[in-house]
Amino acid sequence: MEKRIFNFNPGPAVQPLPVLKQIQKDFLNYNNTGMSIIEISHRSKDFMDILESSKTRIKRLYNLDDSWHVIFVPGGASLQFAMVPMNFLPDGKKGEYINTGTWSTKAIEEAQIQGKNIKITASSKDKDFSYIPKEFKTEKDSAFLHITTNNTIRGTQYQSIPDTEIPIISDMCSDILSRPLDIEKFGVIYAGIQKNIGPSGTALLLIKDKMLDLIPENIPTMLNYRTYVKKDSMHNTPSTFSIYCCELVLKWIEEEIGGLENMAAINKEKSDYLYNTIDESKGFYKGTAQKEDRSLMNVTFRLLSEGLESKFIALALENGLGGLKGHRIAGGIRASVYNAMPLEGVKTLCKFMEDFKKQNS
Amino acid sequence: MEKRIFNFNPGPAVQPLPVLKQIQKDFLNYNNTGMSIIEISHRSKDFMDILESSKTRIKRLYNLDDSWHVIFVPGGASLQFAMVPMNFLPDGKKGEYINTGTWSTKAIEEAQIQGKNIKITASSKDKDFSYIPKEFKTEKDSAFLHITTNNTIRGTQYQSIPDTEIPIISDMCSDILSRPLDIEKFGVIYAGIQKNIGPSGTALLLIKDKMLDLIPENIPTMLNYRTYVKKDSMHNTPSTFSIYCCELVLKWIEEEIGGLENMAAINKEKSDYLYNTIDESKGFYKGTAQKEDRSLMNVTFRLLSEGLESKFIALALENGLGGLKGHRIAGGIRASVYNAMPLEGVKTLCKFMEDFKKQNS
Repeated sequence: MEKRIFNFNPGPAVQPLPVLKQIQKDFLNYNNTGMSIIEISHRSKDFMDILESSKTRIKRLYNLDDSWHVIFVPGGASLQFAMVPMNFLPDGKKGEYINTGTWSTKAIEEAQIQGKNIKITASSKDKDFSYIPKEFKTEKDSAFLHITTNNTIRGTQYQSIPDTEIPIISDMCSDILSRPLDIEKFGVIYAGIQKNIGPSGTALLLIKDKMLDLIPENIPTMLNYRTYVKKDSMHNTPSTFSIYCCELVLKWIEEEIGGLENMAAINKEKSDYLYNTIDESKGFYKGTAQKEDRSLMNVTFRLLSEGLESKFIALALENGLGGLKGHRIAGGIRASVYNAMPLEGVKTLCKFMEDFKKQNS
Repeated sequence: MEKRIFNFNPGPAVQPLPVLKQIQKDFLNYNNTGMSIIEISHRSKDFMDILESSKTRIKRLYNLDDSWHVIFVPGGASLQFAMVPMNFLPDGKKGEYINTGTWSTKAIEEAQIQGKNIKITASSKDKDFSYIPKEFKTEKDSAFLHITTNNTIRGTQYQSIPDTEIPIISDMCSDILSRPLDIEKFGVIYAGIQKNIGPSGTALLLIKDKMLDLIPENIPTMLNYRTYVKKDSMHNTPSTFSIYCCELVLKWIEEEIGGLENMAAINKEKSDYLYNTIDESKGFYKGTAQKEDRSLMNVTFRLLSEGLESKFIALALENGLGGLKGHRIAGGIRASVYNAMPLEGVKTLCKFMEDFKKQNS
C-alpha cells in the first residue's frame, strides 16, 4: 500500500479508497473493452450503462419517483448560480433566497446580474454567518426559496429542511448524499460533485418535473435544463470520467455503507467526536458556528492565536493529517469530514488535537 | 500488459499510452502528497503547478506571446457555441460564420437563439458538407469570422487558414495541437479537450487579449470569458483531473513527439496510409470528402452497401480495431486518427482493409 494521508480538504476532497483502487485497477482496460474509461465513447453501451446506473442509484438512495429527473451538467455549482434563475425565474416571477454565507451570496449575485426579481427573505450576515436563520416567511406566489443546506466556510448546516409553501431549490454541494432527505420539500437540488461524489468539474441536479414548466424560451441549449432532461445529459459529450467516478461512489454508499440512514449515522458519529473534542478543550479550541447549527460536514474552529493555528496545521500535516487550513475568508481550522472520511481519520485527528493542546497549553 | 485495442473513436478518443500508465501509477498518491490527483485541492501548490505548466506548454507549442490568454472552461465546445456570441457579439456588431457541417450549424444556431446579428458568409451544405468553401469575402467591420477547422462527421479539414481582415474564431475541437498554426490570424481558438488533449468535459480556449474588449457587461460570471482570464481559470473549482491529464498529454507532445511540426508530419503519414488504401481499392472503399479538403484527423469512407459496412465494423472489432462506425448522420466508416493513434494502429487498419477487400470482392 502506498503512502496515504487523512485528507480533510474541503473539496476536491477525500474519496472512498476502494473506489480509488477500482479506478486505478481498471484504468488501462475498462470492462475488458481494451480502452481506458477516458477513451470509450459516451454513446457506447459501456458508458450508457454507467450513466443509467448512476441515475438509478441516486433515485434509489433518495426514494425519487418518476416525477424526478436526475441530470449531470458541466461545471460546478457556480454555473448553477446563474442557470437556476435563468431557468426558473421567468418574467413576472419572484425568487426568494436565504443568505447563509459566501455561496448563498454568490447565488444571489448571479440572479441580480441577470436583472431577475429576487428577495432576500432571511440572512445570517449580522453574525458573520455563524447560524442558520429559522424565523422567516415566504410569499406563496414566489417561484422558489433558494437555500444552501451546508455552508463549508462557516461550518453551519440546516439540521432540518424548512417548511414552506413553495418549492425549495437547494445548493447541496457539501452535504448531498450525506443523510436522508424529506425530498418532497424540494423542487431542485444541485451540487458540484467534488465533495461527496467524485472529482471536480461536474454538477449533479435532481429536478422535479413540474419545475421545467417555468423555463422560458430562447435560453441557449447548453444553459437550458430541459436539454439535459430531454437528452439524458447527453446532448453533447458529458464528463464521462466524472460520471464513472460518481457511479462507483454511489455503489459504495449503497453496497458498502448500506444507504443514507447508515451514512448519516456515521457522519454524526464522526462530527460528534470532533465537536466533543472542541467542547471539552476548555476554550483551547473554539467552535465558530452556533451549536445547534453545527455542520456535520465541515467542522470549523479557532485556536487562541493565528500563530498557534499555523503551528497546528503544519504539525498536523507532519502527522499525516492534511487539508486543515480554514477558508481564507474565515481563517482558523476546518476539518472537512465528508462521507468518505473514515472514522479512523477523525479519531486520529481528535487524538492529535488533544496532544497538541497538552503541548501548547 | 493488459489487453488494449486500437481505438478509432471520434471522441472521447485514444490517449497516449504512456500518459494513461502515468495516471494509473500515480492515482493513489500524486507527487507524494498521500492523496489522489482527484482529491488534492485546486488551490494547492501541486495543482497550481499543473495548471501553470499546461498553460506554459500550450504557449510554447503555439508560440503564443503575452497578448494571448490560455483558459480552461467547463463543458465542451457546445457551451462555447453559446458563449462565443454572448461574449464577442455586443450590440451593433456582426459575426460571420462559415458553415461546414453539423458543428458549424450548431454554433450558428446558438448565436441565433440569442438574437445576435450574424451572417453565413459561406457554406458547403449544397454538397452535403463534403468540401471546404474557399471563395468568400468578409466585411471589414464584422467582429469575427467563425470557422470549424476540422469537421469530424464529414471528414473535411481546412488545409490552410483563410486570409481575412477580421479575427478568426475557430472551433478546433478535433484538430487542436495536431499541426503548427499561423496564430496571428486568430482571435480565439476553442476546443473540447476530449480528442487530442484528454478526457471529456472541459474546453481549452486561447484568447487574444484585444478580443476581451468586445465583452459586454452583465454576463453571468461563469459565462464571461473575462472571469477565466482574471481568475486564471480558478474562479471556481475547475476540473482538476482534466487539466492534469491535459498537462501530461502536452508534455508527451513536447517531450516524446518533439512539438507540432513533428506531430503534423506523423499525422500526415498516418492519414496518407489510409487515403492511399482507399484510393488504391478501385472503388471498394470510397472516400466521402473532396480530396483536397480531406481531414488528417477523421478519415471517412463508404463501402458498397450498408450490410458490408456493418460486417466491416464487426470484423474489425474482432481484430482489435474499435470505434470505426461513422457518425449516425453520415453513416459509413470513420477512422479517427488523432495525435495519440500510433502509426502501428493505422498500418494494422490498412492491412485489415486490404484483407477485408480481398475476402469481399
